Amino acid sequence: MTVPLTRLREELAEHHRQLVASELVVWTAGNVSARVPGEELMLIKPSGLPYEELTPESMVLCDLYGEPVDGGLKPSSDVFAHAYVYRNMPQVNGVVHTHSTYATAWAARGEAIPCVLTAMADEFGGEIPIGPFALIGGDDIGRGIVETLSGHRSPAVLMRSHGVFTIGASAKAAVKAAVMCEDVARTVHITRQIGEPVKIAPDDVDKLYDRYQNVYGQGADR
Amino acid sequence: MTVPLTRLREELAEHHRQLVASELVVWTAGNVSARVPGEELMLIKPSGLPYEELTPESMVLCDLYGEPVDGGLKPSSDVFAHAYVYRNMPQVNGVVHTHSTYATAWAARGEAIPCVLTAMADEFGGEIPIGPFALIGGDDIGRGIVETLSGHRSPAVLMRSHGVFTIGASAKAAVKAAVMCEDVARTVHITRQIGEPVKIAPDDVDKLYDRYQNVYGQGADR
Amino acid sequence: MTVPLTRLREELAEHHRQLVASELVVWTAGNVSARVPGEELMLIKPSGLPYEELTPESMVLCDLYGEPVDGGLKPSSDVFAHAYVYRNMPQVNGVVHTHSTYATAWAARGEAIPCVLTAMADEFGGEIPIGPFALIGGDDIGRGIVETLSGHRSPAVLMRSHGVFTIGASAKAAVKAAVMCEDVARTVHITRQIGEPVKIAPDDVDKLYDRYQNVYGQGADR
Amino acid sequence: MTVPLTRLREELAEHHRQLVASELVVWTAGNVSARVPGEELMLIKPSGLPYEELTPESMVLCDLYGEPVDGGLKPSSDVFAHAYVYRNMPQVNGVVHTHSTYATAWAARGEAIPCVLTAMADEFGGEIPIGPFALIGGDDIGRGIVETLSGHRSPAVLMRSHGVFTIGASAKAAVKAAVMCEDVARTVHITRQIGEPVKIAPDDVDKLYDRYQNVYGQGADR
Repeated sequence: MTVPLTRLREELAEHHRQLVASELVVWTAGNVSARVPGEELMLIKPSGLPYEELTPESMVLCDLYGEPVDGGLKPSSDVFAHAYVYRNMPQVNGVVHTHSTYATAWAARGEAIPCVLTAMADEFGGEIPIGPFALIGGDDIGRGIVETLSGHRSPAVLMRSHGVFTIGASAKAAVKAAVMCEDVARTVHITRQIGEPVKIAPDDVDKLYDRYQNVYGQGADR
Repeated sequence: MTVPLTRLREELAEHHRQLVASELVVWTAGNVSARVPGEELMLIKPSGLPYEELTPESMVLCDLYGEPVDGGLKPSSDVFAHAYVYRNMPQVNGVVHTHSTYATAWAARGEAIPCVLTAMADEFGGEIPIGPFALIGGDDIGRGIVETLSGHRSPAVLMRSHGVFTIGASAKAAVKAAVMCEDVARTVHITRQIGEPVKIAPDDVDKLYDRYQNVYGQGADR
Repeated sequence: MTVPLTRLREELAEHHRQLVASELVVWTAGNVSARVPGEELMLIKPSGLPYEELTPESMVLCDLYGEPVDGGLKPSSDVFAHAYVYRNMPQVNGVVHTHSTYATAWAARGEAIPCVLTAMADEFGGEIPIGPFALIGGDDIGRGIVETLSGHRSPAVLMRSHGVFTIGASAKAAVKAAVMCEDVARTVHITRQIGEPVKIAPDDVDKLYDRYQNVYGQGADR
Repeated sequence: MTVPLTRLREELAEHHRQLVASELVVWTAGNVSARVPGEELMLIKPSGLPYEELTPESMVLCDLYGEPVDGGLKPSSDVFAHAYVYRNMPQVNGVVHTHSTYATAWAARGEAIPCVLTAMADEFGGEIPIGPFALIGGDDIGRGIVETLSGHRSPAVLMRSHGVFTIGASAKAAVKAAVMCEDVARTVHITRQIGEPVKIAPDDVDKLYDRYQNVYGQGADR
């Protein structure tokens, strides 16, 4: 198991660099986790460390209840939300959390983002839903994520007054969903600043989503 | 033909870097193509590859119906739109497609961008028009581009609920049009956020356009 | 004392680089100061120097009335505001001043930023208050900062028609507050552009603040 | 004269890099010029060259009617506006022109930027005024700049439907005015997006302007 875990640590450090490069995070906010394949374990960002100090070794190995299993640094204080998702969504292998600006603004108004762009139909298959307000530290945030995403094709959920969580079949797919979520949150926000977006017919949303999930890309992991 | 094609591949990879540097694209969205001079062929970005992995060699050689002609990677899923343009607009040698934020917001409202800036009169010679909603994968997007641009001097068209396509006598000119389109889309949007722009007389738009097309620059390819 | 002062100079130069990297300042505007531990002295940015020319040695050593004590460059013209804070808030060891865009927009309207984000409850424990209009050069700005912050848990205050001042137990903590202040000023502004934010119950604000101040991070200096 | 002209060329190339770094320009738009001290000559950006290709040697030496005096590249098509300013404002030694986003949005509405920030009182001493619409190529733009600035302390003028021109006792001072103009144009725009700015009393504007012009900085050229 040593080699895959080493690689998973490197990839997770790289995913955190991607959050910074995509301007989704400031200071120490935001975090990415990855399920360890075939184990009841996850890797996650340590709590309160600046992004420029993150290394593969500083990523914290935890069980799926958020407890660190080999000493070292404290995990992100969002660890319980990530852990709840892994326990309850077996198909999910990566989770991302950010306070990215435009997505968080929709979350602060308690509004879902309507699906009015073809790129949004492609990636999210419909609206990006709004989840409940929940306090940090227990299972409440995790439960809100899982319950909200259950009724949607979207890999992203806006948690009210808080920020965004995204999920994916891999940590990379969850990072992509976080990047695309902020991009469409911004574009739809700007659309609405001076008018209303034209709707896309639900049937066209379905066609776009099906095509993108099945035809786009080189056939490898997206 | 080997040498020109090699150079065309290098230039096309460089144009994709320009889209990233100009912040017109995120993740794998967006693409540039170039007609191969004197051939019934085009080069275009491969589907779903990250910008940082694009190389001259990864650009995909296709015929003008979007079919790859020498194996390798799959072309961008937008290839049929590019191909339709090359078949129907012989003066066009480069096409760019992006979901750049402000231009896409105008597209999501289904609104043309009015010509209220001298820089817009220079480059676009009038409004940037809005084209129809069309699904990806056949000739519908390409036909929408060609039919909409036929009635305008603008090298850019906003495709409803989708994004922007730009054309040019060279791929570089199409990239310039994409950069300028987002710049004026943003400035006119911001203008309208707290009031209305003053109109420019059509006669002055004509004078500005004529001068810019004929007097500006060093006389070389823009 | 030589070694700590040398280190304090290096840290202060680094904090100024952080203001630039975080896009909180343009040209020569903005400044950071640090109290010299155990002395009636402070270090502050020199007046009117470009950020790229700042060095540890160019930081100006002043007494707590803003007078330079060892020749060299003139201190920032905001030095009297910083000095007033150090004289009247013994728990403060760092002060930051910026004209960061969104925070200054709230200041220009004379509006406090309401606490409608969990990240804002974490860091500010409530609203970011608005202080009075005051002219530069005497004790008026400093007095406005101290009087306004006395009634709040926030380490940031918006000075009307002017900009932001933040305080901290260290200069680094004050820089963090300046970064987070602009981040929440921007997100809450964008929230309000197309609607109203949902309120967070005062009791939940208290719980979030208490947890963040006591549980977050690795237990070291934040 | 050889040495000063060489240095002036290097400084002018550096000023163009500053426009790019400050995100005031896209593609080939925008330009800076400098009067050659003691001569009836000016240096200015060549027409239509990308910023990354600009070198000290590519700057074009012209007389004060905009005619190039030693062959080489064609000067910026804005050269006649710069030349008119130098002929009519002997105290001006540098001119900058941009289409920076927020300043141009005010210009597109035909609105002056009201002086509602202390930083704006410092640098501009009052509002940033709006000049007339004028076509490029003759003396109309230059005359509009000179007539509009005559009634104001501001070194910046918004030319209607076009962009910004700034002047300075040096090219560096004109670049600073261009950077600060966009900064206050953005902050005041954002202020007004969700309310109205509080006014600053004219007497306080005078005090701030006098102090900044006479006390700020190290006494050297700003």
